[in-house]
Amino acid sequence: MAHIDLGVDETQFPGISGPVRYRPETGQPLMELADVLLRGPSTLSRGERELIAAYVSGRNECRFCAGSHSAFAAAQLDEGMALVEQVRADLDSASVSPKLRALLRIAGAVQVSGRDVTPELIGAARDAGATDLELHDTVLIAAAFCMYNRYVDGLGTLAPADPAMYALAAERIVRSGYRR
Amino acid sequence: MAHIDLGVDETQFPGISGPVRYRPETGQPLMELADVLLRGPSTLSRGERELIAAYVSGRNECRFCAGSHSAFAAAQLDEGMALVEQVRADLDSASVSPKLRALLRIAGAVQVSGRDVTPELIGAARDAGATDLELHDTVLIAAAFCMYNRYVDGLGTLAPADPAMYALAAERIVRSGYRR
Repeated sequence: MAHIDLGVDETQFPGISGPVRYRPETGQPLMELADVLLRGPSTLSRGERELIAAYVSGRNECRFCAGSHSAFAAAQLDEGMALVEQVRADLDSASVSPKLRALLRIAGAVQVSGRDVTPELIGAARDAGATDLELHDTVLIAAAFCMYNRYVDGLGTLAPADPAMYALAAERIVRSGYRR
Repeated sequence: MAHIDLGVDETQFPGISGPVRYRPETGQPLMELADVLLRGPSTLSRGERELIAAYVSGRNECRFCAGSHSAFAAAQLDEGMALVEQVRADLDSASVSPKLRALLRIAGAVQVSGRDVTPELIGAARDAGATDLELHDTVLIAAAFCMYNRYVDGLGTLAPADPAMYALAAERIVRSGYRR
């Protein structure tokens, strides 16, 4: 059970969905930000952006967010969950493009500290074809999940154990997005 | 200079103000979230909420955000910068109420990991009079600054060295808020 009374049945509204309903004034910009970053117009595919979210959430050991965004990435990548698991287990050997690998390395640095993003990491991503906007969005997706992960776990919300719950949520997100 | 071309003169638009102008689609929800959390209706004063933001930003060693929110807190607390510096230097001995100290301890836990927020930390804040909404907002302010700090530093934006720059920004924020 969450640390505070969210006023919802947590088995129906696990993870971030309880706090977003509890405090709609903050829930609205939080979901707007997620929708723009993960689903808005971009030269990075929705699957690639969800993979960045899943990778950062895994490194933050946030069970709910890692489970959710792994499922959302898998549902929107041709290679499905196998690729998500490869990336989360060993980025260096995963079958991703050089550009996506370089962006994921930047996301990994941001997860530790913004100050860990070096000119060398930025240069490597540029050499692999990353644009300024892709670099910006990668940094902000990684930073935003350092927030979402802490929000979900800092309130002690429920993370379902059943993978089917995340696959079901993926159908809804792929269809309708994050905005309520 | 920032890692990407933000299209602004960074001496005029340092820190987060460049990225927010560069990408208004994400800048809008980011500033909306800050305004609701730090200035919207709350039983925590604006000065107390800015103090939480300054405390977390200091622990993340984000010069721009720590400088900014320390100045914004100082401008809205009767005790001014002396109290902000006390809290950032040694929370245990700082002259704050038991409730605010307990909330700052929760914020400090969130800065490390959401999973570090224990029932004991929550219970201590409740015993000192914290409400569910105050607990929620404290966790989210702390989590949000783990994002803002990484965003600002992950893009390598400029942090002015001159304290007068932050005091000037404080006048504007106190008067007009975060929304553009």
